[in-house]
Amino acid sequence: MVKAFLEMDYLGRQSRVAAALRAQKHDGALITHLPNVRYLCGFTGSAGVLAVSVDKSSHQCAFFSDGRYIQQAKEQVKGARVEIPKTAAISAAAGWLTKRKKGARVAFEAEHMTVASRGGLGKIASHLALRPTSGLVERLRAVKEPCEVAQIRAAVELASGVFEAVLPDIRSGATEAGIAAEIEYMSRRLGAEGMSFDTLVAAGKRSALPHGVASQNPLPERGFVILDFGVILGGYCSDMTRTVHLGRPDRAARKMYQAVLEAQLAGIKAVTPGAKCAEVDNAARKVLVKAGLGEYFTHSTGHGVGIEIHEMPGIRKEAKPAKQSRKRANRIKKQAGTQFDTLLPGMVITIEPGVYIGGKGGVRIEDMVVVTETGCEVLTPTRKDLIVI
Amino acid sequence: MVKAFLEMDYLGRQSRVAAALRAQKHDGALITHLPNVRYLCGFTGSAGVLAVSVDKSSHQCAFFSDGRYIQQAKEQVKGARVEIPKTAAISAAAGWLTKRKKGARVAFEAEHMTVASRGGLGKIASHLALRPTSGLVERLRAVKEPCEVAQIRAAVELASGVFEAVLPDIRSGATEAGIAAEIEYMSRRLGAEGMSFDTLVAAGKRSALPHGVASQNPLPERGFVILDFGVILGGYCSDMTRTVHLGRPDRAARKMYQAVLEAQLAGIKAVTPGAKCAEVDNAARKVLVKAGLGEYFTHSTGHGVGIEIHEMPGIRKEAKPAKQSRKRANRIKKQAGTQFDTLLPGMVITIEPGVYIGGKGGVRIEDMVVVTETGCEVLTPTRKDLIVI
Repeated sequence: MVKAFLEMDYLGRQSRVAAALRAQKHDGALITHLPNVRYLCGFTGSAGVLAVSVDKSSHQCAFFSDGRYIQQAKEQVKGARVEIPKTAAISAAAGWLTKRKKGARVAFEAEHMTVASRGGLGKIASHLALRPTSGLVERLRAVKEPCEVAQIRAAVELASGVFEAVLPDIRSGATEAGIAAEIEYMSRRLGAEGMSFDTLVAAGKRSALPHGVASQNPLPERGFVILDFGVILGGYCSDMTRTVHLGRPDRAARKMYQAVLEAQLAGIKAVTPGAKCAEVDNAARKVLVKAGLGEYFTHSTGHGVGIEIHEMPGIRKEAKPAKQSRKRANRIKKQAGTQFDTLLPGMVITIEPGVYIGGKGGVRIEDMVVVTETGCEVLTPTRKDLIVI
Repeated sequence: MVKAFLEMDYLGRQSRVAAALRAQKHDGALITHLPNVRYLCGFTGSAGVLAVSVDKSSHQCAFFSDGRYIQQAKEQVKGARVEIPKTAAISAAAGWLTKRKKGARVAFEAEHMTVASRGGLGKIASHLALRPTSGLVERLRAVKEPCEVAQIRAAVELASGVFEAVLPDIRSGATEAGIAAEIEYMSRRLGAEGMSFDTLVAAGKRSALPHGVASQNPLPERGFVILDFGVILGGYCSDMTRTVHLGRPDRAARKMYQAVLEAQLAGIKAVTPGAKCAEVDNAARKVLVKAGLGEYFTHSTGHGVGIEIHEMPGIRKEAKPAKQSRKRANRIKKQAGTQFDTLLPGMVITIEPGVYIGGKGGVRIEDMVVVTETGCEVLTPTRKDLIVI
């Protein structure tokens, strides 16, 4: 039984989102994406909307859910009044904002609201100036508070323990799904609320699949086995990958593993506050290019992790926007400030280069790291030398 | 290792969606919701768009994904050419439709496309007349083919086996999460690809939570324990709930269990082709009202189950649309035909009434049933008399 180590700073988060709204000349916001709702007011249920209303110097929040969550909302929600309307929560939230200021300019989360929900707001929305926004709360979430880092660290350490515990199960003849079952069972037993994504176990030729969900295939006598999994603990995700080898690895396999490991270490070394995400990606990538394996590294180097398994920032090559959308890209970049492409202290990211050679196999090594004031700290305690089974 | 029993009828499904598009005077559709993509062409990955183009007498499909899925798409996709564009799949799909007919009237899934995705289509969409639709593929999915029923039956039977196997673990002092761990482990071991939703284990006072996700709380000496879980097998979901009692139940507890069981049997008895969903809901509900427990039955009686855990139809009271939206409701109803509110042979639904008394506890009993030509068949083989532990 693991509890939160420190208090989450809900009131501070609400102040920060209010400041962001003011800076973007909004009068309020409709927060509908549940991880963002949870981040801002602590509600963990499956249905709820947070309305935020701001003026020059103050802000107010109201939370709307349905009858199933009366008790839970009262217990969990911080810094916002709780309303259980008879109408849909989103409509009630829009109504509340309308009451506070007719014609209010209200930000909504365009990446999470469906066209149908937007349309369904109907008449209520006609009294508001609804404005699509992107990453409003996600940008705040990218930089973790100390209590969030502590919670993530606990999730990472739990998962590392699971990896050690499951090692004896990795043997020729066991199925990928059987190993995934052990990983998930052990995680639950150690207190995880669940897994942060479908457990990947990919052995032999299947290890060349960057996204190899565990199959019913038995593990071969010889070859790589990639294990990529994460747990959820106290609402925060972990993410780790290790690749082990069944049977004696040949020279090519050893070389491949070594190259990925060196790329991963180079990526970690590049993580420091102020570094561009693309520089970190490049630091890892160029090691693999030098080893003649660049073409087999087909994904990005990493991503932020927190309440969700994929958060900002993305650790990838700088996107080259197409000509016609450069203006839009610049606008987004400006809106986003430095947090889209530059590392800041408190960010928690993965570093996970990989090499995948179709018909042969693949290797990926992934740690989670937190950006500190002076560099970074690797959160994942698990060793990275090649384990031969 | 369980395989599909029969061939899924992808080509038939594509013909049926084409007919629906013609009937609604669309020239094509952009299918972005992954369960719908899977249903129509067999692709099970995490990123892909299916474009459907129709004219008076024929139709064509094209599937778009990204580099990660070259191999998998080629192996899985039926009845559609596979394209791996360099641009976003959705843009490439829209481009393909534009090429086939400039200004084509193209249906998109408004309940699944975000405002941002819709906006992101940008210039490409300006050569198409994009039209929001609701439940285009979901309505087809509501009526299962025989091979789908067979696959669902296998999932239901696997889960019933898990329930029997986990019974010895349900004892005072065990934690809810520990029991959930056993359920999930056993499911995996028996071949499930995963769980169809977060496993609910809610004991004692927590059994009064209709949506009680397993906590780290230990089970009490005495009281109800609700277990609600489902597995995914061959891509299809199961869903079952049983409520057991720890220690000797008092008279009130026995009465409560008996009332829910009678309500559940009455609900099942009402399932027959041509019956209104609201009639089935009412059949179960009125038993609980008669027992003086109507106010504690706070949710609907059931829902469709298939590739997703919640599908059409909803087994609930008839919605009373608000005045201003009656026109819209009628339009939707007309569009939907009879499948929204009337049972048809081949529909697979849950019947799951429950009673939840805050501070005391709750009972829910849930089976899955398939509507047959003459009535229904209960798929869940597990007994329903009160199990006292």
